[in-house]
Order: sequence, then C-alpha cells, then structure tokens
Amino acid sequence: MNKPIGARDGAAAIYARYRREDLPMPPEWNETLELILAHRSYRNFLPQKLPSGALETIIAAAQSASTSSNLQVWSVVAVEDQERKNRLAELAGGQQHVRDCAVFLIWLSDLSRLERLAEINKREALALPYLELFLTGAVDAALAAQNAVVALESLGLGSVYIGAMRNHPEEVAKELNLPPNVFAVFGMAVGAPDPTVPTGVKPRLGQAAVLHREQYQWGEAQLEAVATLDAKFRDFQKEQGLPEQGWVRQVLSRVRGPDAMSGRARLREALEALGVGLK
Amino acid sequence: MNKPIGARDGAAAIYARYRREDLPMPPEWNETLELILAHRSYRNFLPQKLPSGALETIIAAAQSASTSSNLQVWSVVAVEDQERKNRLAELAGGQQHVRDCAVFLIWLSDLSRLERLAEINKREALALPYLELFLTGAVDAALAAQNAVVALESLGLGSVYIGAMRNHPEEVAKELNLPPNVFAVFGMAVGAPDPTVPTGVKPRLGQAAVLHREQYQWGEAQLEAVATLDAKFRDFQKEQGLPEQGWVRQVLSRVRGPDAMSGRARLREALEALGVGLK
Repeated sequence: MNKPIGARDGAAAIYARYRREDLPMPPEWNETLELILAHRSYRNFLPQKLPSGALETIIAAAQSASTSSNLQVWSVVAVEDQERKNRLAELAGGQQHVRDCAVFLIWLSDLSRLERLAEINKREALALPYLELFLTGAVDAALAAQNAVVALESLGLGSVYIGAMRNHPEEVAKELNLPPNVFAVFGMAVGAPDPTVPTGVKPRLGQAAVLHREQYQWGEAQLEAVATLDAKFRDFQKEQGLPEQGWVRQVLSRVRGPDAMSGRARLREALEALGVGLK
Repeated sequence: MNKPIGARDGAAAIYARYRREDLPMPPEWNETLELILAHRSYRNFLPQKLPSGALETIIAAAQSASTSSNLQVWSVVAVEDQERKNRLAELAGGQQHVRDCAVFLIWLSDLSRLERLAEINKREALALPYLELFLTGAVDAALAAQNAVVALESLGLGSVYIGAMRNHPEEVAKELNLPPNVFAVFGMAVGAPDPTVPTGVKPRLGQAAVLHREQYQWGEAQLEAVATLDAKFRDFQKEQGLPEQGWVRQVLSRVRGPDAMSGRARLREALEALGVGLK
C-alpha cells in the first residue's frame, strides 16, 4: 500500500464490512486496520509453495499472541505432503482447497506437553482433565491462529479456516500421530490467492446486535440489525453468484439439529476417545 | 512508524520473541508484523477515555474475523461505569487493572441470538446444546477478540486478557444481565498504556516444540526448546523485577490440581446453571 491512508479510508472500509452508514468515524487509520477490515476467506490458491521463511514468520506471529497463564497449551501441524493433504481433505468432507493449498495447518489444543513435563518432573497435573483446560487449549489455539491469519495476509497470502477437522477427530488424530490429550480444534488452508477468482468482503451484523453497553441488550435495535444483515447478505450472495438466501435462514439451517452437524454431534464421545477430559 | 522497515528488522523482532538465533529470516517485513511480534500485555493504564470512535473501530476489526459457518455466535459487553468495573474486578480476584482501564470488554459465547431467531421463525435449533456449539462460540469469541487486540495496538492502545472472568461465571452473568445460553469466555481490560511502566516481550517456546511437520513430534528437539525457554524465562522474570522462576515450574504449579484453579474446576457446573449445553 503506497497511497497515504486516512480516516476517510477507514470509514469506507467500515462501510464495506457492514453496508450501513451509521457507524462512527475511526479516530485514525493505518495499514493494519485496512488489512483486518478487508479480511475474507480464500479458497482458490495458485499452485506454488510459500516463500522461504514465510511459515516460520507466521508461526512467530501466532506465538506472539497472549496465552492463558503463559501455559502455551497449543501446537500446530504443517502438512505439505500431497497425499496427506488429500487424505485430510477427504476427512473434511472432500474440500478441494485442502488439497490445493500450499500448506495445510492443523491447530491443536495441546495438553500433552504439560502432561509429559509433569511426568518428567514427578509432579501432579490434576487440573488437565477439567473442562476449564479444554477451553483454555481451544482459546489459546484460536488466539494464535487469528494472529497467523493477520500475519499471512500482511505477506499477501490468503487462508480459510476448516472447522470440518472436527467431523472425524479420531481419524485426524491418527493421520497426524497425535498423542493423548491433543485435539485438532480446526484446520487452515494457506496459500497464494488466485487473483482470477474474485472474493468479496462478507457483511456482518450491525454493531447494535454484537456490542452491548454496560449490560446485555435484546430488543428493537438488535432485531433491526438482524433484519438489515438478512437483506445485505442476500445481496452479497447474489453478487458472488451464490444461492440467494437470507442470513437468518442460512444460519438456522446450520443449527437445526444433530443431523446438520456433519458428525460433530459426537464430539464429546470423540474427545473421550482421544483422552481429552471434560470434568 | 516512519523509518523504512526491512527483513533485518524482522529478524530482530523474531529474536526478541524467542531469544534464540536459529530461526529463518522473514521473506519481507511490514508494520503489521512488527506490531504483532512486539505484543505484550498492558496492566497499567493512563486515567483517560478511549478516543471517540476507537471502540467501534476495534469492534469492526473483531467482527471482520472469520466466524464458523457465518453463525456469528459471539457478543461483547463494553463496561465503562466505574462501579461496575469495580465489581467485576472483585469477581476477577481483585485485579486493579480491571478497575483502572478505560473500557472493560467481556467477550461472550452467544448462542442466545440464534435461539431467539429460531423461536421467532418457528424453527428448531436442536444443535445448540451440543459441545460442538459451545466450542464454536468460544472459538468465534477468541478469533474476534484477537483481531481486536491487534487493532487496538495499531491505535496505540494496550490490553490484557482476563481469564478470571471464569472464576465466578454465574455472578458475572448476573452483573451483565446475560440471558441463558450466553457465557463470558474471558474479559479484556483496554486503555492507553502508562508509558512510565516499562513492559517486556515475553519469550516463548522455540518453534520445534510448537510447529510440527507432517505429524506430531516429541523428542530431543522439543525437550531442548522447553529447557531453553525455561532459562530465558528466568532471565525475563529477573529483568522485570518479578520472582526468578523457570517456565516449567511456573506452568506446572498452575495445573497441579483443582485447588490451583481459582474456582474454575466447577466450570461445568456453572455452565449448566447458565443454560449452556455440553451434550
């Protein structure tokens, strides 16, 4: 970005995210905000490797995120082998971008490292099988992964999160040789975006629905935000050549019941099998 | 940042994060990477409000993060009222920075919005009480929050995550008037950092321990990363005037058992009371 960048660019970027005009002007604007606001998921990649040092830089960014009590209870597996990517794509319901990406990252909640260190040091680690630590591992992995996304976009790369790594947790664990107490929270396909496939900034719920002041609110303003997004999302789908569908209908179809969950209704059972406690 | 910025700056920033020389050179370097690598938690704030428009800009950044299947199952409460900040500080074990910050943000997993929309639209939402959706809400909130951290740092602000929002989940829910199926995943104190209180970049585990190639690894290289961090962390503590303690000892004391969990061993029970399913 070589042009000077000011608050007016910020207002434009915020408009693009919400497609509504009633948001305050940002106090200032900079390249980092420009990058974050323009985020989109990329599913079409050029057939080329990442530049040398890019992966390590992205992971250094990930490790720079906060981690609960400095526990660092996450790890990541970087898969470049084509056969392994193909197998993981199958486990993710046949997603082509998992095959096509330069590197497929699998972000792990990793309580195994502390378990082994406790064993080596002859100490007890009786907190590990609690739900609190399961949550800590997932949150640690998510904070790290989101830093990675911002970092890789600053290098001109693109990515898409793959929640479908939770469709078959035991098979994923086997493929990656995960020890007990390690769990693939989500995947992430990373590569150089194909510039011939345009992607758009997906509109989001107006801030009234998401940002609450002092206490949680639910009323007219929140319902208005939902109704507006529903219409804007329909426009977005049309522009992208996707099925014209409102946001409410789309999300409700995703949560209608266990049959719509691509196997993830049995996540709890899978975690038990992987030695992850939920006490 | 007005100076030209190059890959050599990147190598220096990466050295500062790991305190070891064996990492590859970044392919290029930019202000966003510089910002992310220099992250630290801020606990000392100047007694001033955020600039006008800053909070909304930070939330726009948060909402620009990916969200699983576009569900947007998170919300955030922004608390500025001093009395409410004081009460939340008490619930977080008396943390002074929760009282002193300009805005205290509480990041919520929010399945309530979809529950209400299902009700209004006379549809079923039977997936909501599953562990999968609990995890989705927590991950969505974490991705959003981490974008907020990067955005607010780009505006010269600082923050610190507050996991202690999970010490007393029911009381936090009551204070924030949370409906059923909404859960405070963590808090975040935000403000203008006090420049008279220096803070350092906290060293992290060498990449061998965290970044695995093709499959999960555990052996000499991982143990070396742990041992090196243990020593570097001791140096860091000394520099910051904190108790000189190695990393292994510190983290193992945190996970030794339910008595070290500040009440979070009963998280599961608290979630049940808040109507959050874990099926």
